Amino acid sequence: MKSMIKRSLLIAAIAGALLFWGAFIMAESPEQVPYPDGYRRWTHVRSGLTGPESPDFKTTGGIHHIYANDKAMTALEENQGRRFPDGSVIVYDLLEVQTKEGISTEGHRRYLTVMHKDSKRFADTGGWGFEVFRKDSHTDRAIWPNAKTSCFDCHAGQKDRDYVFGSFRK
Amino acid sequence: MKSMIKRSLLIAAIAGALLFWGAFIMAESPEQVPYPDGYRRWTHVRSGLTGPESPDFKTTGGIHHIYANDKAMTALEENQGRRFPDGSVIVYDLLEVQTKEGISTEGHRRYLTVMHKDSKRFADTGGWGFEVFRKDSHTDRAIWPNAKTSCFDCHAGQKDRDYVFGSFRK
Repeated sequence: MKSMIKRSLLIAAIAGALLFWGAFIMAESPEQVPYPDGYRRWTHVRSGLTGPESPDFKTTGGIHHIYANDKAMTALEENQGRRFPDGSVIVYDLLEVQTKEGISTEGHRRYLTVMHKDSKRFADTGGWGFEVFRKDSHTDRAIWPNAKTSCFDCHAGQKDRDYVFGSFRK
Repeated sequence: MKSMIKRSLLIAAIAGALLFWGAFIMAESPEQVPYPDGYRRWTHVRSGLTGPESPDFKTTGGIHHIYANDKAMTALEENQGRRFPDGSVIVYDLLEVQTKEGISTEGHRRYLTVMHKDSKRFADTGGWGFEVFRKDSHTDRAIWPNAKTSCFDCHAGQKDRDYVFGSFRK
């Protein structure tokens, strides 16, 4: 009887530890960029395609769409993206492409890259937080906590455009 | 003096006739689909690309984006596009593509195709009005008044999806 109680306690302890660890992994740290809920209804800024002939095919191969929320769109339209207000979010949505007899169609999501403006939280990286969410996951993060080297070092060259590449295609 | 007055009257008459004719051409007939003002801020439904290997390259070559206004989106989300309410508008935006070393970027607009639901005005073509606006023009129409043969005869096969091809990519 005593050993049964002991075993039950052990199982409960393990389950508790797993739950705690899971919650820890799932929880968003204040330095993390939130998943951009609802971005598929935001404004479509522009698109592009990277084919197998490109040396970047392994990293960015597929079709990508850029989306901007209303705050980011205000900046893109009113000051040509020279200054984005806090709360601006820009998304780079990368999908696989299937091509058959010259017709290319969209496939599964490869990853979703996010730039989230918060000049206080992300002061070290030009006021922008960067993240990459793998496939359709809202929690599987490929960048954090390495945004500086993985993202910002390249975006830094765009300082006069508030670290953003590209513009709104009318 | 008299001949000068006559000449002035003649010039005025010609100018008036030209203005009248111009206004007539510019005015939208009730059977015409209105240009979809503001569609670039609507929801981006999905995209595709038609390359030179496709037999359709001449007509649909380039990258296309589908956009839907809020009424059309309600139908796409709530009943998987089986019934679109009046006022639904769906746009097919076709752009040229430049490809260099595997990287394809968007070029000039080839044309903008519009489906506009108004079950009374467009009763003869499944309740949808169809139009193609050439390049960036809001008035240069490629279809009207031939929507039945140029568009609807093909869309008719999609009757159980309210004559619409495609679905919302999440």
